[in-house]
Amino acid sequence: MTARTAGPVLIVGSGLLGASIGLALRGLGVDVLLEDASPTALDLAVDYGAGRRAAEGDEPALVVVAVPPDQLAPVIAAALERHRGALVTDVGSVKVKPLEALTALSAPIERYLGSHPLSGRERGGAISARADLFIGRPWVITPHEATTSEQIHALEALVLDVGSAPVVLSPREHDRSVAIISHVPQLVASLMAARLVDAPAAAVNIAGQGLRDVTRIAGSNPELWVQILTANADQVAPVLAAIRDDLAELERAIVAHGAPGARRVIAELLQSGNTGVARLPGKHGGDARFTQLVVLIDDRPGQLAQLLTEVGEVGVNLEDLRLEHSPGAQLGIVEMSIVPEVRDRLEEALTLRGWRIAG
Amino acid sequence: MTARTAGPVLIVGSGLLGASIGLALRGLGVDVLLEDASPTALDLAVDYGAGRRAAEGDEPALVVVAVPPDQLAPVIAAALERHRGALVTDVGSVKVKPLEALTALSAPIERYLGSHPLSGRERGGAISARADLFIGRPWVITPHEATTSEQIHALEALVLDVGSAPVVLSPREHDRSVAIISHVPQLVASLMAARLVDAPAAAVNIAGQGLRDVTRIAGSNPELWVQILTANADQVAPVLAAIRDDLAELERAIVAHGAPGARRVIAELLQSGNTGVARLPGKHGGDARFTQLVVLIDDRPGQLAQLLTEVGEVGVNLEDLRLEHSPGAQLGIVEMSIVPEVRDRLEEALTLRGWRIAG
Repeated sequence: MTARTAGPVLIVGSGLLGASIGLALRGLGVDVLLEDASPTALDLAVDYGAGRRAAEGDEPALVVVAVPPDQLAPVIAAALERHRGALVTDVGSVKVKPLEALTALSAPIERYLGSHPLSGRERGGAISARADLFIGRPWVITPHEATTSEQIHALEALVLDVGSAPVVLSPREHDRSVAIISHVPQLVASLMAARLVDAPAAAVNIAGQGLRDVTRIAGSNPELWVQILTANADQVAPVLAAIRDDLAELERAIVAHGAPGARRVIAELLQSGNTGVARLPGKHGGDARFTQLVVLIDDRPGQLAQLLTEVGEVGVNLEDLRLEHSPGAQLGIVEMSIVPEVRDRLEEALTLRGWRIAG
Repeated sequence: MTARTAGPVLIVGSGLLGASIGLALRGLGVDVLLEDASPTALDLAVDYGAGRRAAEGDEPALVVVAVPPDQLAPVIAAALERHRGALVTDVGSVKVKPLEALTALSAPIERYLGSHPLSGRERGGAISARADLFIGRPWVITPHEATTSEQIHALEALVLDVGSAPVVLSPREHDRSVAIISHVPQLVASLMAARLVDAPAAAVNIAGQGLRDVTRIAGSNPELWVQILTANADQVAPVLAAIRDDLAELERAIVAHGAPGARRVIAELLQSGNTGVARLPGKHGGDARFTQLVVLIDDRPGQLAQLLTEVGEVGVNLEDLRLEHSPGAQLGIVEMSIVPEVRDRLEEALTLRGWRIAG
């Protein structure tokens, strides 16, 4: 595969996102230059193969600024100043504030085009970087009034090269969207997880997957998130206020659950939750296309391979697969996602071959 | 394996939990009798092999009441009345209220011992039942003043037979625990998901795994949950109140994020979230024992089987495995969990064999 991106590409900031972009582009043969305020971080990213050190005379065609949110505006302004032939983008989680700050700095924003890959891991740093970090994820491009369509195409080339799907939104649409789908969920997860700090051990010990899912992202880095949340406070605040109102009504109904109408308030909130969650696209942009078949296997090497070989022999392609071990039982639970049309045939074939179907 | 449970066991209510208990006990050869107010539901559970219809003259040693929360007390009371030689338990999500109701009914509670399996699926009904539903999950037993240790042992036999870990808590400890780890998380997920009802399509379309995790359980059945939440309102309300207070403080800090101390408030909440989520046990009672190796495979039948065959040849046992397809890319991402000691060896062996390691 040849790269769509016209290099050299200079990546400023060689943390998780910067190093991952570097790895992906290097895999396509793009010339990638790296810079980082921390020499150690830079060394690490170079060692990982994310690119080479930028040198005097290097003239990037594209600069990607991948620094923490509170350093974005000055670092973008400096890049615009130093690389006058380059389009400069950034990968920050908030788009309005940095653009306003650049305008206030009288930076040449006609060469700045913001963007935001909706990718990430709970861990940070080049050490967690991976070339496939962006595959199949949206990458939002946020043009402003001075942006040209050539610039959008140039940035889309990079987005497509790393395997992401480009989505064009205005900076304000972007910030409003991420408030709802990322920033407030982060706070909601933290609010819930904070209740566990003083919870009795008995409670924590019987917790299951539901609570783990609700609170998983509460493990994120507080310093980074304070920067994100304050930078997008204007959009985060109204969503929090709406949750506060719903919560107040809900709490009243729970306390007075015998009163007329109280159960209805609770039911309506749960119903709204059903409606809201149903709007989320599945992993495949619509998981509803698939059905599950669950097979129990013995917990020893080779069993799963044997099962999958036989699934292949039956001629069925798996859309997704999960293996879960049952603690305390010598048993693995394999949940296979398949298109509904083949389910009966696969179940019958596997049963005939002696596999234990559990659902 | 022979059953520890002394049968016959009568299961009253043949929905998801009742039918799943029946399937698990039938697998061990226990005589299982089924009853359900709905003849259709009963037929379905019998067809699924969860047990046989209860007949005149059957005398169960143990009765398991598995009906919706708001029917628990009268159905338990009737079972105590009809089966005077039996220990009667239930599998309801709330324990104090039904016990109080039984006492108010002057039921012979010395033969009633409540319990609650922490298992469940988003789908209900015998049609979703599976014998492995309880494997590796906690099953809380809630003795009261009149309970004997023989009765606890008898119920523990059933809990162990279906593969669960028995946990003994008082009814009040139980209700307080599930408020924190189950009932309030349900409401928090619903509060968040309710924000998606009127969210712009642009926002919903760029949503990712974080939001999906936070809101997954918001897909649960509202009717069932209204019953659970109102039955445990006394324990749910104070947890909601604590979240309301944290949220109010957080909202003030977000709105006035430039003011002295505001960032600290936000940071402290996020930090508490870190602390809280770290208290949760992993899937294996500590997933930290495992490390991940990610391999990219082509998206066609046989590839995954081939990979796993080769992993087996290297002599490595997988602890867990996830396959994810990248939408729009002809690529599967296989994340294998392994013990850290074998990671380097496996990575080297797979690289030599031509597999693409992504991290």
